[in-house]
Amino acid sequence: MASRDVMRSTTRGFRRYYNPEVGGELRMDTNTNVLGSNPAAEKYIREQREDINGYPNTYSDGLRDALASLYGLERENFVAGSGSDEMLDVSFKTFTEWGDGCVMPVPSYSLYDYFIKMSGGKPLASELTEDFQLDVDDMVRSGAKVAIVPSPNNPTGNSFRQKDLEDLLRRFGGIVVIDEAYGEYSDSSMISRVGEFDNLVILRTFSKAYAMAGLRVGYAAASLDLADMMNSVKIPYSLNKIGEGAAIAAVKDQEFIERSKKMVAEERPKLAAELRKLNFGPYPSDANFILAASPIDHSVLVSELKKKGVMIRDFGDKRRTENCVRMTVGTAELNKIMTDRISEVLEEFG
Amino acid sequence: MASRDVMRSTTRGFRRYYNPEVGGELRMDTNTNVLGSNPAAEKYIREQREDINGYPNTYSDGLRDALASLYGLERENFVAGSGSDEMLDVSFKTFTEWGDGCVMPVPSYSLYDYFIKMSGGKPLASELTEDFQLDVDDMVRSGAKVAIVPSPNNPTGNSFRQKDLEDLLRRFGGIVVIDEAYGEYSDSSMISRVGEFDNLVILRTFSKAYAMAGLRVGYAAASLDLADMMNSVKIPYSLNKIGEGAAIAAVKDQEFIERSKKMVAEERPKLAAELRKLNFGPYPSDANFILAASPIDHSVLVSELKKKGVMIRDFGDKRRTENCVRMTVGTAELNKIMTDRISEVLEEFG
Repeated sequence: MASRDVMRSTTRGFRRYYNPEVGGELRMDTNTNVLGSNPAAEKYIREQREDINGYPNTYSDGLRDALASLYGLERENFVAGSGSDEMLDVSFKTFTEWGDGCVMPVPSYSLYDYFIKMSGGKPLASELTEDFQLDVDDMVRSGAKVAIVPSPNNPTGNSFRQKDLEDLLRRFGGIVVIDEAYGEYSDSSMISRVGEFDNLVILRTFSKAYAMAGLRVGYAAASLDLADMMNSVKIPYSLNKIGEGAAIAAVKDQEFIERSKKMVAEERPKLAAELRKLNFGPYPSDANFILAASPIDHSVLVSELKKKGVMIRDFGDKRRTENCVRMTVGTAELNKIMTDRISEVLEEFG
Repeated sequence: MASRDVMRSTTRGFRRYYNPEVGGELRMDTNTNVLGSNPAAEKYIREQREDINGYPNTYSDGLRDALASLYGLERENFVAGSGSDEMLDVSFKTFTEWGDGCVMPVPSYSLYDYFIKMSGGKPLASELTEDFQLDVDDMVRSGAKVAIVPSPNNPTGNSFRQKDLEDLLRRFGGIVVIDEAYGEYSDSSMISRVGEFDNLVILRTFSKAYAMAGLRVGYAAASLDLADMMNSVKIPYSLNKIGEGAAIAAVKDQEFIERSKKMVAEERPKLAAELRKLNFGPYPSDANFILAASPIDHSVLVSELKKKGVMIRDFGDKRRTENCVRMTVGTAELNKIMTDRISEVLEEFG
């Protein structure tokens, strides 16, 4: 029997990721797009005649061209790969030495800690302020080599202030990776400014607003220099042909994205109001989900709700989000199902 | 302008991978399956109705079950991901510390050096013997943490002797990764023996015999302990739904694999004989390609052949394969086209 001593010292504590048993529940726990699969991507898959026996284009030039056209940037500003998770991995592999500190806000995305350790780095936590905004001074003082900042933040939902991000980019001594996984839902994105800051990397995904999580497509945008470094480090061909083709089709169909944004912008305040009526404490959100303090014990709420066929995500055991749960903003119809089931649980266990 | 000083010190010399301009040439340079795309995978893609908006199964349980059934092993002996390239990356990330030596035979697959450095390790070269076999004593003496050994070897084509691999597994002080990318074409595989050696990791791909390079699917097999460590380190959901579904269908259609093996077994000696007639020096192969010393300058041969619409791979500038080229074993028809074009080049430039 092999002991975990054979593992990289920073990874010996790793356990497998969130992997709930599912059986047809309404998934309000993963923040994918509730309007359903991306229609342009589905049409492409149905009609495609790719030669699956041949390797994909080595650096996904087709997708990078489509993105360049969407954002008014150049192909070589982009790095494409298998989900924004690969882009996170590539960011740390490209820009850190063994043992380098990498600073992230707390609370934020749980997997940052894992990616930093996987790459041999040292995670440094920077507490968010009372209103879940960045403490830029603290992040600068950390002396970290890379700062990883999700905006909108997950699980809190708010975007960070543009001026704080600019301040961080100017004063931080290393690379600033802004993870815009939910960027489509927010009015503030830094992607158009990659030419302006030579230490800025933006990460984006096709798993949320683009409604293609099953295909695992993500990308990074950065200055030509930084993007070239990341392309040199990333695994060639990591994005498969079907995923690339579907993503190109999806980029060219912005109507679906606009419709998705509009739906979330309309339903999010209504859901927050409904949650307030049920004595939840919802936090402000620029994303397609809401973090809210639960009026009853978080774990009772989440497990009882699952029995009634609705899954939401439990953050109640974590510091700064004590007794909080996170739920996706649904359509009016889905939100009614979710809040009706929540009401039932509150009646039974409140 | 950002200098490459911001990069991980081991990666600063990285340049992008082999990425030739192509325009409809016959590709005898990548060793994919010349019988064409995997028919079961194509049928699955045509008929599938996957929900692309949902995340894939976190650890590709469906594919791991299909592989367990194929090999008579357990689901938890397997790790699945986005190409065997991801599995290479995971192997080094899981089993090496910064600066650890990782030993590989020379000549072998050019990307090992890249994967080792990407992960912060130190590549150590172990010269193959005169007949391209392993120097086990030398590999053991290297004191490396990981040995990466492709069998059949690429670009030489031969499998390593079973007794040398067993000897290495018993005497080497670290993890032995055997890359069986071309394992389907060889009679000697170690995959059934992962339970026997607690330092053995086998890598396999769907990009070669399985004829699905465009979908990027690969896997590792190892003891339950080692596979669990690798699954804890690998990126969750890295294998997309369509790739996983296609791979499951392909595993269940062994007839195509058998047909592919039979074709290569029949055509390989005929192609070698034809090459000998043309004054090439072909080396013995257990794979679907042949390495051969060229009778004229290697770079003239490769570039003139490309002009005639046939691409083969040039290894002529590398030590131990001086003036050699590598070509995929085609069907009788494809081999005739290839050798006819080669004859023309030899007449013009010989």
